Amino acid sequence: MAKQKEMQLALQMVSGYGGEFSAWRMTGTDPAAYTNMDSYVERAKLAEKGKFQMIFIADTPALPNDLGAQTPMFPMDPMLALLSVARETEKIGLVATLSTTFNYPYNLARQFKALDVISHGRVGWNAVTTSDPSAASNFGAQPLSRKERYAMAHESIQIVQALWGSWEEDAWTLDTKGGKFADMAKIQPINLKGQYYASSGPLPIPPSEQGQPVIFQAGGGYEGLELAGRYASGVYANPYDIASAREHRQALRESAVRFGRNPDDIKMYAGFMFSIGATEEEGLERRRKLMSFNPEEIPSRVSYLGTMVGLRLSVHTVDIDQPLPDDLLERAYASPQDPRSPRALELLKKGLSIRDVLAHGVINYHPVVAGTAVQVADFLEEWFLAGATDGFSVVPDIAYDGVADFVEQVVPILQERGLFHKEYEGKTLRENMGVPYQYGSAETK
Amino acid sequence: MAKQKEMQLALQMVSGYGGEFSAWRMTGTDPAAYTNMDSYVERAKLAEKGKFQMIFIADTPALPNDLGAQTPMFPMDPMLALLSVARETEKIGLVATLSTTFNYPYNLARQFKALDVISHGRVGWNAVTTSDPSAASNFGAQPLSRKERYAMAHESIQIVQALWGSWEEDAWTLDTKGGKFADMAKIQPINLKGQYYASSGPLPIPPSEQGQPVIFQAGGGYEGLELAGRYASGVYANPYDIASAREHRQALRESAVRFGRNPDDIKMYAGFMFSIGATEEEGLERRRKLMSFNPEEIPSRVSYLGTMVGLRLSVHTVDIDQPLPDDLLERAYASPQDPRSPRALELLKKGLSIRDVLAHGVINYHPVVAGTAVQVADFLEEWFLAGATDGFSVVPDIAYDGVADFVEQVVPILQERGLFHKEYEGKTLRENMGVPYQYGSAETK
Ligand SMILES: Cc1cc2nc3c(=O)[nH]c(=O)nc-3n(C[C@H](O)[C@H](O)[C@H](O)COP(=O)(O)O)c2cc1C
Ligand SMILES: Cc1cc2nc3c(=O)[nH]c(=O)nc-3n(C[C@H](O)[C@H](O)[C@H](O)COP(=O)(O)O)c2cc1C
Repeated sequence: MAKQKEMQLALQMVSGYGGEFSAWRMTGTDPAAYTNMDSYVERAKLAEKGKFQMIFIADTPALPNDLGAQTPMFPMDPMLALLSVARETEKIGLVATLSTTFNYPYNLARQFKALDVISHGRVGWNAVTTSDPSAASNFGAQPLSRKERYAMAHESIQIVQALWGSWEEDAWTLDTKGGKFADMAKIQPINLKGQYYASSGPLPIPPSEQGQPVIFQAGGGYEGLELAGRYASGVYANPYDIASAREHRQALRESAVRFGRNPDDIKMYAGFMFSIGATEEEGLERRRKLMSFNPEEIPSRVSYLGTMVGLRLSVHTVDIDQPLPDDLLERAYASPQDPRSPRALELLKKGLSIRDVLAHGVINYHPVVAGTAVQVADFLEEWFLAGATDGFSVVPDIAYDGVADFVEQVVPILQERGLFHKEYEGKTLRENMGVPYQYGSAETK
Repeated sequence: MAKQKEMQLALQMVSGYGGEFSAWRMTGTDPAAYTNMDSYVERAKLAEKGKFQMIFIADTPALPNDLGAQTPMFPMDPMLALLSVARETEKIGLVATLSTTFNYPYNLARQFKALDVISHGRVGWNAVTTSDPSAASNFGAQPLSRKERYAMAHESIQIVQALWGSWEEDAWTLDTKGGKFADMAKIQPINLKGQYYASSGPLPIPPSEQGQPVIFQAGGGYEGLELAGRYASGVYANPYDIASAREHRQALRESAVRFGRNPDDIKMYAGFMFSIGATEEEGLERRRKLMSFNPEEIPSRVSYLGTMVGLRLSVHTVDIDQPLPDDLLERAYASPQDPRSPRALELLKKGLSIRDVLAHGVINYHPVVAGTAVQVADFLEEWFLAGATDGFSVVPDIAYDGVADFVEQVVPILQERGLFHKEYEGKTLRENMGVPYQYGSAETK
């Protein structure tokens, strides 16, 4: 029997605490996890035990959120977090975002390649253009147009990949007897010059086991699709339902084909959040608890939920610990503006209290499953078998125990169902993602 | 009795092999040490055992030398090397060079501060302007004038220090009960705008145990002195003799005073190389062996030695395994252009063979002692007691065993003579350098 296709898993790290902003207040969590690299290392080790293909650290060079009530959304520094993990793991891939707009290509190329060599070929770069205006002002820049950002990104990635290829594969001779450290004939400048960036090279870094780091992409619109189709082997996406996920995946595959690539060489990872309990009620209770830390946010969440189902809802006019009154329920409809609305309506119609509908994460950024490990596995299976995605970028609610729950309870179910690998295919990220070895320029083989 | 003043020691790492380019070929050395972070970690641990105040990693973002016969002069990436060391040591300071010309201040501030927090206050930044034209071309830039580079450096350091101070010292409240992660009233933008750089801030990073990283400087001329006097607590210098070292140190102290600082708050570290043996002959034999790996370089070294003593020397006209013939010796004089010349002449007059004079390192970049641990200690003592320097940046010939030799043999002698501390004064680099706690802007207290 031919081997069934298997999904892939990325663990999204979210600054050490987990996806929920109040996770830092949960018993067991190190409240200072943000500055403690061990928090990254421990979670990554668990994910490696669970055979996750990679960890993923998102980043924006700014402090865009209010730290009064919330934890930071990004790490102190993504590369230092990745290196901490690299030094204490062996197989798991290491992916971080760095901005194409606010880094010199030479510095990007150098640090990612060094990390790739140190980790023996496990590194990926999520190349994003950073639209956040608070990032621009940290670099003395005005917010740039989308067109300009993407034009810079093309130059950045091309120069970075050329620098990565500035040593031929066998340039590092290390011949101690003959006294030839490297073959300088095989280490050549790149001399690339674009409109925004230029670099002469070569980079002072020898080949890694996977050739060069893997390019990831996570961004919107036509420009994002084009960037992905051209360079990316992995794409982080945030679809909210199967239909839109399939559409995005199909568009990515077509974009790869337009650039002469094999569509199977581009893998999409859909964002997904979970809260696992021994029962559905226990899973939900975790999220009620998380919500309870920020009661001041409930009024706005209730009113937001209202707009998703075409109603004006206020904590002053409804009891949130009761189901939505029948008269309101009759008038409710799923807003076509928000892909999360049908799920919200479905739960309201089921007769859940408003608090519990919110606890189910219907207004979260990612789809959420609050329930048992089997329910989580069912969700992932349904999406995967529907061709919605190649894998998932999973965000634990609370990193402290959420990662262990997923690894110990969900992964074995997926493996049993033949939906997830039981062992790493190889040592490099490329091998474990099933994307081709790449050395040198942006051309793929 | 008042405590005698003690010297300080920095271990210069030089890309994992040691200061001599043929060190990678010596038995015992890992020929791939360049890409192996363990090589940095092991040496740093030894240095910590020897109570060195810090390790120092120099850097230029380029590949300026020929890797056919030589190893790289700089690490794959200085910050990743420092983090590797930070995670496996506890007390030793961690200093690296990054260029003020080829990095955005925000990125510099972020990575150094993150590392400072991770290491619990042990980090220093050697802020250099990077004059190497091969670096400029890696960033699509023309080589900049010295004036421009130093103008950029002032802006860079001021913005970096302001970003470091963008959180007040007690801004990170971490109040889990009250749900207050940080006090946003104490995290403020900096909104600095210069001619070359600008940044709004704040940085997303809380205070470190030493306030902010320590600024180091290593550069030439009036501009360098000014930069050091204004911001630096440590200066790496390359004097070749006591007289020029004293002059440099005095100039640094006066520069600090001009900027309203205490001259004792700026420490100079003089570069110094050593080759230790049980006897002087053994120390010398280490260096003969190192030289023997690159016989093709001997002709040019011999002719170079000639110019230092006013002679035309060639391997075709003299036997390098013999002392300089008397007729030549009579005409020899120490070239006033080269501060290393008196030492070269002294050894020639002693009747050493030309090969051995070269083996003594007379044409090396730093002063060299090839001899016993006592001879090394005597040299350091003489310089230190003459007020030539506050400490040394020591470069092992071969990192593999040279660091251990220094720690096990030289350090105890210095400690016995009361010239070097026996225990770390504190946990932060500032405490161990004896320079004041600093938080926020460039003003010192
Ligand atoms: C799953 C996912 C992950 C993302 N990660 C990052 C990130 O780490 N850093 C960032 O600046 N933007 C990130 N983005 C945002 C996009 O790169 C982009 O900024 C956003 O989609 C809007 O700008 P654009 O459509 O002009 O690209 C991410 C987007 C998605 C969908
Ligand atoms: C001990 C010492 C260490 C230095 N380390 C570095 C270094 O790590 N990176 C670098 O680019 N330059 C380094 N320099 C060089 C100076 O920063 C500077 O580039 C050089 O002195 C010439 O340029 P300037 O006089 O215009 O500054 C060092 C210089 C000295 C004396």
